[in-house]
Order: sequence, then structure tokens, then C-alpha cells
Amino acid sequence: MTATPTLDFWFEFASTYSYPAAMRIAPLAKARGVNVRWRPFLLGPIFKAQGWDNSPFNIYPAKGRYMWRDLERICAALAIPFRQPVPFPQNGLIAARVALVALAQGWGEDFCRATYRAEFGEGRDIGEATTIASVLAALGRNAEEIMQQAQADAVKADLRAQTEEAQRLGIFGAPSFTTGGELFWGNDRLEAALEWAQR
Amino acid sequence: MTATPTLDFWFEFASTYSYPAAMRIAPLAKARGVNVRWRPFLLGPIFKAQGWDNSPFNIYPAKGRYMWRDLERICAALAIPFRQPVPFPQNGLIAARVALVALAQGWGEDFCRATYRAEFGEGRDIGEATTIASVLAALGRNAEEIMQQAQADAVKADLRAQTEEAQRLGIFGAPSFTTGGELFWGNDRLEAALEWAQR
Repeated sequence: MTATPTLDFWFEFASTYSYPAAMRIAPLAKARGVNVRWRPFLLGPIFKAQGWDNSPFNIYPAKGRYMWRDLERICAALAIPFRQPVPFPQNGLIAARVALVALAQGWGEDFCRATYRAEFGEGRDIGEATTIASVLAALGRNAEEIMQQAQADAVKADLRAQTEEAQRLGIFGAPSFTTGGELFWGNDRLEAALEWAQR
Repeated sequence: MTATPTLDFWFEFASTYSYPAAMRIAPLAKARGVNVRWRPFLLGPIFKAQGWDNSPFNIYPAKGRYMWRDLERICAALAIPFRQPVPFPQNGLIAARVALVALAQGWGEDFCRATYRAEFGEGRDIGEATTIASVLAALGRNAEEIMQQAQADAVKADLRAQTEEAQRLGIFGAPSFTTGGELFWGNDRLEAALEWAQR
């Protein structure tokens, strides 16, 4: 009677390093027998609490220049497409709400990967409803219907609750992973987090 | 006629994640045939240019809490001792100057590792000259003589020049690694940096 190891994957659609994490996590977790719960949240309120009204990669230019090159190298090593989106950061609100609807319906991981690919693989603006609608259509979904479901008060409240829970857990950036009372931050901590989940 | 792959290892004695990097780098580089140049520098002037007068781990408490736990986990996985030093951050100025002297004399890597172990393995205050003197004595060095050499104008100028070069290279944190025109930041990028050096 051992419970399946579980990991919570906290991501924000505006977050650059969440892109490679979202593309990597499913096969790595499957190989280790770890069940992953995808938890979209918003970094905006958390950054605001730290005194930031913009991405730290814009506030600190040296860090920003480094991050874009680092992300480019990471994507090349993973053989996934990379294109810097304009503007940056993008508004991940619509995508996060749609992700909650899609995850509840069982096709959320595909939506998240497709949205990250549109944003950081093709440089499209996922803050625009039309971009999200076209991602949904490409997945064979009824975009109009889903977009409407994503505007429900319950979905909005759910996203707020996720963000509040992230903050309570001490999350200050994305991607983050929580398991067994431990917090891991960054795409580069994915393997360590999965190993912890298996303990 | 292939030149030996070379990597510059930029570290600051106050920097927490420089500790595991300093403990790991020599065997990893040797196994890959990469020559490492140890480059101590000071983060203070670079942080000041970003508007910080303290460690970002103190300025952003959630990030700081996370870092200490993350570092503890990393040290446990590497089976190296860990003890949070007080105060934090420590003043790495004396250690950096002594490191330059020691590196020029060929025993600098041992000094750096011993200093990091005193600081983050035993929680000792390496900002104090007496701590550095005892580290030197434990290495069988004439502490008084070395400490005096470290106060020479040429050494002070050398450390300033290293810090200015770090800033020119776009370095904004420690540890950092530079090789072949590329910058890698963080203990978790050590392997990627070594691989790049081998290209």
C-alpha cells in the first residue's frame, strides 16, 4: 500500500524557464513513476509583493541578456524551437484560465505545451485571445466554447486560489516544484524534485 | 595542435552556491580534460550597480529561505558539510586577496576550498583576518607572511581588475563560468559550461 509519488508542477505562462520544464516533465516523471499535478499560477501578484512591477529579467538587464542566451542554449540542447517573444513578459492570464479548464477536462497538458511552443518556440503573443483561440483550434477544440468556459467566475476564483497557495508555499518564481514539503525552483531542479518525490 | 580547453571559474567568497561549485569543479574538469582558471572577484560593486546594497537573498526573504534549504540539500547530496554562517553575507575581501596570492604561488585551489569549507561547512566568519590566518596555518603556510603579501597594492589592483573584467563580461552573480565567449551562471550550470569548453 504505497501511495504513488506525486509532484506539483507550478508554472506561469509568462515564465521563460517554465517552457523547457513543461516540455521535459512528462517523460521524465513517467520514467520515474511520479504523478505530476500541473498547477498554473500568476507570478504578477508574487512579484508585486517583492516590489517588482516587471520581470526581473527586464529590471536587471545583465540578467536578462544572460537568460535569453541561456534559454536559447537549453532549447538547442533539447532540440526544441526557440524564438524570443515580443513583448516580454507576456500576459499569461487568459492562457492560465484556459489551462485550468483544459486540465479539468483531461487535455490540459497538451494545451500547456502547445501554448508554450507558440510563445517561446514561435514568438507569438499568447496574451492575445486570438492566439489562444488558434492554439485551441489546432488541438481540435471548440475555441469559442472553451474561451467562454475560461471566463467563468469559478475559474477566475480557482486561479486566484492557486496563486495564493503558491505564495503560501513560499514560491517566488517559476517553474517551481513541490513534493513532500520541499520546494524546488527552476527548470534545472526538475530532476532533483522528481528524485525527492520518489523517496 | 589543439589548444587545451579552458574555462574561467568566477567566484566570490560570500557567494553560497560558489561553495559546491568550488568543491566540485576540479575532478569534473580533470575528467573532461578542461583546464580551469580560478578567478576570484567581488560581487559588491556589481550588486551596487544593480541597485542592491545587500545580498538578494536578504533583500528577498522567500528567495533567501529557499536558497538555504536548497544549499543544504545540495551539500547533503554531495556529502559535504553545511552550516549557515553568521553574519550573511560575509565580507570576502581578505579571502579574495589571499586567494590571488595563493593562486599565483600554485596552492590557491586548496586555499579556496579550505576557505569555503570553513565558511559554509563550519559556519566560521571568513571576513575576520584571524579565520583566514587559521585556514592558512592549517594548510601549513606562513599566515603572517601571506596576509602581508595580500595587502600589497599590486594585489589590491589585481582584484579590482578581476572585478571590472567580470562586469565587462556581463557577470551579475556567482559562481559564473566563461568559455569561448559564452557565460554560464550558477553551480547548476557547471557541467554545461565544461561541455561547452570541450567543443
